[in-house]
Amino acid sequence: MSNVIVKNIAIIGVGLIGGSFALALKDAKVIQTVTGWDNNHENLSLANQLGIIDNLSDCLGDAVKNADVVVLAVPVGSMDSAARSVLVHMKPGSILTDTGSVKQSVVASLEALVRECRVDFVGGHPISGTERSGAGAAFKELYCDKRCILTPTAETELTSLAIVEQLWCAAGSEVVKMDVVKHDRILAAISHLPHMIAYSLVNSVSSYDRYPENILDFSAGGFRDFTRIASSDPVMWRDIALMNRESLLEMIGQFEQFLAELKDDIDQGDMERLFTFFQQSKISRDAILHPDPKDQK
Amino acid sequence: MSNVIVKNIAIIGVGLIGGSFALALKDAKVIQTVTGWDNNHENLSLANQLGIIDNLSDCLGDAVKNADVVVLAVPVGSMDSAARSVLVHMKPGSILTDTGSVKQSVVASLEALVRECRVDFVGGHPISGTERSGAGAAFKELYCDKRCILTPTAETELTSLAIVEQLWCAAGSEVVKMDVVKHDRILAAISHLPHMIAYSLVNSVSSYDRYPENILDFSAGGFRDFTRIASSDPVMWRDIALMNRESLLEMIGQFEQFLAELKDDIDQGDMERLFTFFQQSKISRDAILHPDPKDQK
Repeated sequence: MSNVIVKNIAIIGVGLIGGSFALALKDAKVIQTVTGWDNNHENLSLANQLGIIDNLSDCLGDAVKNADVVVLAVPVGSMDSAARSVLVHMKPGSILTDTGSVKQSVVASLEALVRECRVDFVGGHPISGTERSGAGAAFKELYCDKRCILTPTAETELTSLAIVEQLWCAAGSEVVKMDVVKHDRILAAISHLPHMIAYSLVNSVSSYDRYPENILDFSAGGFRDFTRIASSDPVMWRDIALMNRESLLEMIGQFEQFLAELKDDIDQGDMERLFTFFQQSKISRDAILHPDPKDQK
Repeated sequence: MSNVIVKNIAIIGVGLIGGSFALALKDAKVIQTVTGWDNNHENLSLANQLGIIDNLSDCLGDAVKNADVVVLAVPVGSMDSAARSVLVHMKPGSILTDTGSVKQSVVASLEALVRECRVDFVGGHPISGTERSGAGAAFKELYCDKRCILTPTAETELTSLAIVEQLWCAAGSEVVKMDVVKHDRILAAISHLPHMIAYSLVNSVSSYDRYPENILDFSAGGFRDFTRIASSDPVMWRDIALMNRESLLEMIGQFEQFLAELKDDIDQGDMERLFTFFQQSKISRDAILHPDPKDQK
């Protein structure tokens, strides 16, 4: 019995995210062929050599014309232009989906574009990634046991939503549906804020100039792990910061209040409040790793 | 030929730090016996069962009376009282050393105490650790290829300094000597500030209450890794925050300025400045992992 969900997939942007999705779908045998396109020809060739894609195309139109599902896996700032370029070549009844980390603005602009075509759009965002980029960083297990958020709206075709959901489930993810505003607020808190903090931390420590040596040379494993996400792609994060501006500013403000409270407790030498602050944080953090079994589904 | 540096070591506080030091020294065969003491009897028994220590003692005096070197590996807030308790029992000509993460206040108080005795003091701090605590977390490789900072002063006996240095080298560390003020400033930047930020981040995100569900459930690997250090021991970090107050407040202030600058760039939608901010951070972060070979010793 065949498990094939759709025959032909086109991946636009064969980097860590798009490439890993292709590998996972091929591994699950739920698609037949993957065609790839990338604005970086070297990366596209690499994806082909690594067997991530079956066909490559330097022409965006050729890449998508036979696709049942086109996956936009480009930085969120490029989603609108990528969608404009592919939609004119997509076949009627096919599905456009994306993997963007910001949904409110992306979904609004892509929904407006598909209204002109006979193509369905389904917004998606796999909550998964590493600090690495490019086809060489892709691996088929990236989405295993991770959540993928889909953000259907009143305009979303339910049959197309079901197909995109099946694809992410086949890639190993648990699919959660959520409205775009809630998505952007939650991601601002758990992903975008930590990245802003990591980038700010590295910049503030590396610009510390009281001593001639580079004090980052003294950093132990804690600092390296803590700042791993500051090695992420600057273009991707510039776009996210701009496109999730409102939610991100809210979360930075909330974080600033907590840090200011802690700073005040240190300044005052308040032992009890400091202990409570650190203990509360440890309890919350430990709970992510070892959730209470009663709360499990 | 024997490699023995000193015969008897006493470890006061047989947790991750003290326990790993004992394991590394035993493995290197540079000591003959390790006696352990801990204020938590269960932890002390565990250390004995795990072979971290050869003898255990419930009496602090018995634990240190035959020791050539006594290592205080307790939270920095307990160093002064631990030193007072052991010094009256230590034999003339023996060495007291510590592993505290804050050096200015610890060295000042322990140097004052040894002036009354025929014991030498050498301040030390291995830059290594994990978020775990207790004897069960100890492992002999913890200090391999890590730096250990020793903070000699004008009062430090050079022969005793050399012995402590040999012990840390035998444990696998590169020993760096530094004055106490510089130590505390550098550690504030590369270790204490990141911990304060991680604790504040977890508290600010976990208190986000716009939605009924716990949004931490959505966190992917990035958030988990980024906040790993927020699972560290609250007592240890309360003490560090209080005892490195001045340097830590300076570094929090510097970080706040960078975050405020980033927040302003997001607010203004300044694409170019955002890209530069993220790219600069990525370059600094990547350099920790792949230093320029020309800069290597």
